[in-house]
Amino acid sequence: MKAVTIERGASEVTVRDVPDPTLGSGEVLVRTLRVGIDGTDREVIGGTHGGYPAGEEYQILGHEAVGVVEDPNGTASDTGQLVVPTVRRPPPGTDTNAYFQRGEPDMAPDGAYVECGIAGAHGFMSEYVASPAEFLVPVPDSFAEYGFLVEPISNTEKAVEHALATRSAFEWAPETAFVLGNGPLGLLALALFTQDHGPYERLRRSYCLGRRDRPDPSIDIIERLGATYVDSRETPVPKFPAAHESADLVYEATGHASHPFEAVSALAPNGVAALLGIPDDWEIEIDAGRIHRELVLENKALFGSVNSNVSHYESACESLERMPEWFFDALVTDVYSPDEAADAFADDTNAIKTVIEFDTL
Amino acid sequence: MKAVTIERGASEVTVRDVPDPTLGSGEVLVRTLRVGIDGTDREVIGGTHGGYPAGEEYQILGHEAVGVVEDPNGTASDTGQLVVPTVRRPPPGTDTNAYFQRGEPDMAPDGAYVECGIAGAHGFMSEYVASPAEFLVPVPDSFAEYGFLVEPISNTEKAVEHALATRSAFEWAPETAFVLGNGPLGLLALALFTQDHGPYERLRRSYCLGRRDRPDPSIDIIERLGATYVDSRETPVPKFPAAHESADLVYEATGHASHPFEAVSALAPNGVAALLGIPDDWEIEIDAGRIHRELVLENKALFGSVNSNVSHYESACESLERMPEWFFDALVTDVYSPDEAADAFADDTNAIKTVIEFDTL
Repeated sequence: MKAVTIERGASEVTVRDVPDPTLGSGEVLVRTLRVGIDGTDREVIGGTHGGYPAGEEYQILGHEAVGVVEDPNGTASDTGQLVVPTVRRPPPGTDTNAYFQRGEPDMAPDGAYVECGIAGAHGFMSEYVASPAEFLVPVPDSFAEYGFLVEPISNTEKAVEHALATRSAFEWAPETAFVLGNGPLGLLALALFTQDHGPYERLRRSYCLGRRDRPDPSIDIIERLGATYVDSRETPVPKFPAAHESADLVYEATGHASHPFEAVSALAPNGVAALLGIPDDWEIEIDAGRIHRELVLENKALFGSVNSNVSHYESACESLERMPEWFFDALVTDVYSPDEAADAFADDTNAIKTVIEFDTL
Repeated sequence: MKAVTIERGASEVTVRDVPDPTLGSGEVLVRTLRVGIDGTDREVIGGTHGGYPAGEEYQILGHEAVGVVEDPNGTASDTGQLVVPTVRRPPPGTDTNAYFQRGEPDMAPDGAYVECGIAGAHGFMSEYVASPAEFLVPVPDSFAEYGFLVEPISNTEKAVEHALATRSAFEWAPETAFVLGNGPLGLLALALFTQDHGPYERLRRSYCLGRRDRPDPSIDIIERLGATYVDSRETPVPKFPAAHESADLVYEATGHASHPFEAVSALAPNGVAALLGIPDDWEIEIDAGRIHRELVLENKALFGSVNSNVSHYESACESLERMPEWFFDALVTDVYSPDEAADAFADDTNAIKTVIEFDTL
């Protein structure tokens, strides 16, 4: 079957034929429909994050997928069921461990998981995928086009769950959210935060930081969502409160190394910053005393959040169903066939979200 | 009456006569027994933290007190009841606000509170104190000697409550605590963490960082509590995991500006660092990229915690009742009369906890 891969030592993707998956006991055959591309894929290609499956000369890319069950192989899955696969799996040679058993692979430490398409396991950018049934989240047929967004949305669902937990020892009524980053993850978070529902119901005002000149399609999305665009060249993060207002919730989706420390100044008292970006090493000078003091005297919190679990996929499905059609149309700027994968991964400053389409429902 | 004060512009305490308190409606007259001295008092004296009551030429110091009700003044308090006063009060000219109404003055932002003995209000280092009944926490008679420790313990109770909340979105079983600082706050936290009770029951191993040579009374306390002393000159915070093990919970009680950032490396995956120290400005170089990445990929959290509320005072009373007598005897190294206040505040490297005794039960 056809697969989009990165070969050891290569710096660009290769479309190649790979063996069709063989189904182990309890494994389901999934026909892939669409797979999204994100910053992590680029880090995997660049060799700065993740790693190849043990003993393999290539890695199949992709961790944001939607597909359809082709062969349930004796499991409880139904042929034709639309599914989204989860990313973390037990390490090779193991069936499970305590983190997977309690449904929290997202909290597993290094060594207790592999990540499909990222670290130590093949991803989903192939015509077919074999997966244990337990790692396939059923989604409605209406998700055939945009179901690949469930995975990135689920990361925000986890971050928000943790943010609320962080502030659960007291009465916290967040009104203002400040999203750092106008890439797909930032825009998806913004689409959640502007929903008048559940944990987002109380958020009254949302802002989104970027570095783009108008006219720009991401700024159009920000404003159509009812949020305010903040140009980081005019208003760097520490100046955000003076230019606008302090934020109860900061959501960092840039991987810019200084943002967690700058975010402390952007937070309102009792606020929390969720960090999701993954920067490389970068030494900077900070006023550690002031940041430390502000954290303490204003009861502020910072936390990192990676990956997500099935409960977050389920929340993401509910959130995705509430998102308007225009948002998906505006967000997903580019759809490529697998044979065009090199073009799909090429830098295109006008692209927001790029997807590779293997098949349709 | 006699009071220990700091006068505007002065850099040393003065013992002076001040007017006896006049009782407003709902205010109780408390006869002060003992008032502890801590690092915050020294910051107030040094002018780096807090501020004088509006319009006053001096501030009565002290925020860690125990006293006895002398005149209930028509409130529900009983004459002779031992009490510990809370520190935060509504700003002058106001009776309450939303934070006080819901019992969370510890989460009030700057401007929505004053702090007795610290910022904008007189403290408790005087023969008598007038206080609204609602800010007096009743304690058993057995607390006459050491009840002034309820306030500092309550700050740890709050920090631990917030630490547990921070990690409440997943199953977290902390086994290891690392206390930064072997001053009174650090040692009191260690005495909590080594209790085989409630949230501390699961903690198996505790460590305490200091910079002292043996023999040293604080090291003796650390070891008698069953914890391990970590000399920061041999084992700076980032080297703690290599020398010992990663910590699930880091408790920062040094006010050393770099500790929050160094603590990230000392934490185990899914760990949390509670910050309580209050440093001055201090610029340092950090590897922001590595710290940011570690926070994210290992789901780590940092939060600041200041002050405490009545629920934390109540927890502190329960914790204090479980602490062994030897611990108080070893911790409280110096007891001074009010007239000796200048000596009490003088630096004494062998002192651990110093208290000013106004009266006995």
